[in-house]
Amino acid sequence: MIDRNQFITDCGAVREQSPLVHNITNYVAMNIAANVLLAAGASPLMSFCPEEMDEIVSISSALVINIGCLDRHEIEGMKAAAAAAHRLGKPWVLDPVGAGASNIRTQTALELIREYHPTVIRGNASEIMCIAGLAIQSRGVDSSASSADAVEAAKALAKATGSVVSVSGATDYITDGERVETITNGHPAMGRITAMGCSASALTGAFVAASSDPFTGALNCMAVMGVAGDIAASKGYRGTGSFQVDFLDALSTMDAAAAAEMIRQ
Amino acid sequence: MIDRNQFITDCGAVREQSPLVHNITNYVAMNIAANVLLAAGASPLMSFCPEEMDEIVSISSALVINIGCLDRHEIEGMKAAAAAAHRLGKPWVLDPVGAGASNIRTQTALELIREYHPTVIRGNASEIMCIAGLAIQSRGVDSSASSADAVEAAKALAKATGSVVSVSGATDYITDGERVETITNGHPAMGRITAMGCSASALTGAFVAASSDPFTGALNCMAVMGVAGDIAASKGYRGTGSFQVDFLDALSTMDAAAAAEMIRQ
Amino acid sequence: MIDRNQFITDCGAVREQSPLVHNITNYVAMNIAANVLLAAGASPLMSFCPEEMDEIVSISSALVINIGCLDRHEIEGMKAAAAAAHRLGKPWVLDPVGAGASNIRTQTALELIREYHPTVIRGNASEIMCIAGLAIQSRGVDSSASSADAVEAAKALAKATGSVVSVSGATDYITDGERVETITNGHPAMGRITAMGCSASALTGAFVAASSDPFTGALNCMAVMGVAGDIAASKGYRGTGSFQVDFLDALSTMDAAAAAEMIRQ
Repeated sequence: MIDRNQFITDCGAVREQSPLVHNITNYVAMNIAANVLLAAGASPLMSFCPEEMDEIVSISSALVINIGCLDRHEIEGMKAAAAAAHRLGKPWVLDPVGAGASNIRTQTALELIREYHPTVIRGNASEIMCIAGLAIQSRGVDSSASSADAVEAAKALAKATGSVVSVSGATDYITDGERVETITNGHPAMGRITAMGCSASALTGAFVAASSDPFTGALNCMAVMGVAGDIAASKGYRGTGSFQVDFLDALSTMDAAAAAEMIRQ
Repeated sequence: MIDRNQFITDCGAVREQSPLVHNITNYVAMNIAANVLLAAGASPLMSFCPEEMDEIVSISSALVINIGCLDRHEIEGMKAAAAAAHRLGKPWVLDPVGAGASNIRTQTALELIREYHPTVIRGNASEIMCIAGLAIQSRGVDSSASSADAVEAAKALAKATGSVVSVSGATDYITDGERVETITNGHPAMGRITAMGCSASALTGAFVAASSDPFTGALNCMAVMGVAGDIAASKGYRGTGSFQVDFLDALSTMDAAAAAEMIRQ
Repeated sequence: MIDRNQFITDCGAVREQSPLVHNITNYVAMNIAANVLLAAGASPLMSFCPEEMDEIVSISSALVINIGCLDRHEIEGMKAAAAAAHRLGKPWVLDPVGAGASNIRTQTALELIREYHPTVIRGNASEIMCIAGLAIQSRGVDSSASSADAVEAAKALAKATGSVVSVSGATDYITDGERVETITNGHPAMGRITAMGCSASALTGAFVAASSDPFTGALNCMAVMGVAGDIAASKGYRGTGSFQVDFLDALSTMDAAAAAEMIRQ
């Protein structure tokens, strides 16, 4: 079970420390991911220029790499950043967007994992199952598998890599290979707004930077995202446009103690 | 005249089939175009990495190429994607953003048309007139000509290329060279929100994938966009921020049968 | 003191002339910056392709370069654009995002200033102090200094370069090296929405293109941004999502005469 006091502590730590989270993410997600980080109290920075990766990683509290719009040039920046984070002992999050949809995506994700050991691997069920080596045909960037399907794959992946694995879906699963925690908060509209998963990965960076340990940070992040979705849904669903607005409103005005009471597992 | 039953059928097909639409589009449009596709029930994917174009096109139902932020590297990705779509017989949509504003834009658009035969060419009046070889001075990415000016150019372009041509403006014109259909729905605020044209191109990809034929799909897409604008305007215009929210709400909660009754031609 | 009649005149000129503003900006800011320009009545264009810089700059009324997501390829486009603007006598605005956070950012900003003489340099306090050569440790892209700290640095920078310098913060400072004007409008939520500073830079391009002189244009732009923030805040703060919507609504429906009465200095 989630520790509600630790959840409140972590939410407060993100607001008070305002960790600088360096994102190498796709162009679809950049704006909303930055706004999600700001709404939660963190400080976003976006850069993929290989020449400045050492400097940027060294001033950041966490790194998030999302391979959604990768190309040769960005892969170079991703590797430079991951290498710097690994060398400097900074926590970093990998979101293997679309792993399984193309060879270059799958190979890039696997290489980043093998060489630079992400603190957290956060994806949807299809991506996690692909990365874990289970046979599944990815269908683009959306998930064709349910998150429950991926639980065993996630545990195996966490054990094999030492990374915390966070799988989003109707139920979110967070595992370190031994423990498995679930979060069932959230609303189906979150799957009909682009880059909510990418935003969860970005915010995982902030929580891992501010929390006591990566498993707790990854778990509390998914709880925050889900509760913000529930609060947005409580305004009455009028469509995906207003839902996105209500989601950012909920996140930016969230009372952590009240939110802790709303967590469902 | 539009076939209202076919319109309802196509709207349902997009929701039920949720076609995966691969977009190579500009950075301004990516987020809103993805949200427009999701709101209508389609599934967006954005990639311009040449190395994965064959794989991505092969799993997609349609391709949309928008040259809004082109550079050498992206042109390489665009050509690889268009070649794959042409070879695999996948429908694809070209939005020649800013054609006429620079030589590289005009030449890229012409080369993509000549070599890879887009299923639909969708642009504003200035762009279509430029592409059709008529003399007009483009003024950046907005249109300095009315869509009515472009009707003859659009028909000629459709005849010469075999592409359906879709021209957006206060009145939208859709032609296959013989037939010309109009849509007069929509609101002037749509011209004051960035990337509404790019979003129309993205959604054209979804409708062409799901419809009985490209002409019908391109027409029904513009009807959906226009009716969503009308529904948003019916909330009372308060400015471009809330209009964009209301537009996504309208699109994501649209009742196709009710929308069919709102189409104006 | 600000000239309220000139403020009204400039707001009208932006709407009537609808200056085409060419932006080379970061991927986080592109969509909101384009929507801010459209809301104020200007016409945005985004391109960083070196091959078309001469053509695009020649048809534009102003250029805005924002180094938020720079890399080698974009730096090439930035230099080509700045060179064209300088050669053609077009006003241009530099936003040195993150100057001080890495060597390549600082050097790129300094080189653009030295070689191509921006009409306006617009940044936050940390960036302006860094550029002005004062010792300050930049903390990513947000400002760790207050705008008041930067006043002397801004004046020195303006005198040394001949550029107008515009520093945003709780109080905005605009100086040409002799005159210093302040704007104290705005709301703290503007610092919790990504790319509001980048949007101010984009809009500065429109106002400098339409105004009688760069100092007046830069000042009136910051007044417009601040008043739009005040109008948005007057709706009652519900969170950063609705604040951004209300901000665009306020900007796109602003009555210049009423806004002039709201300016605080």
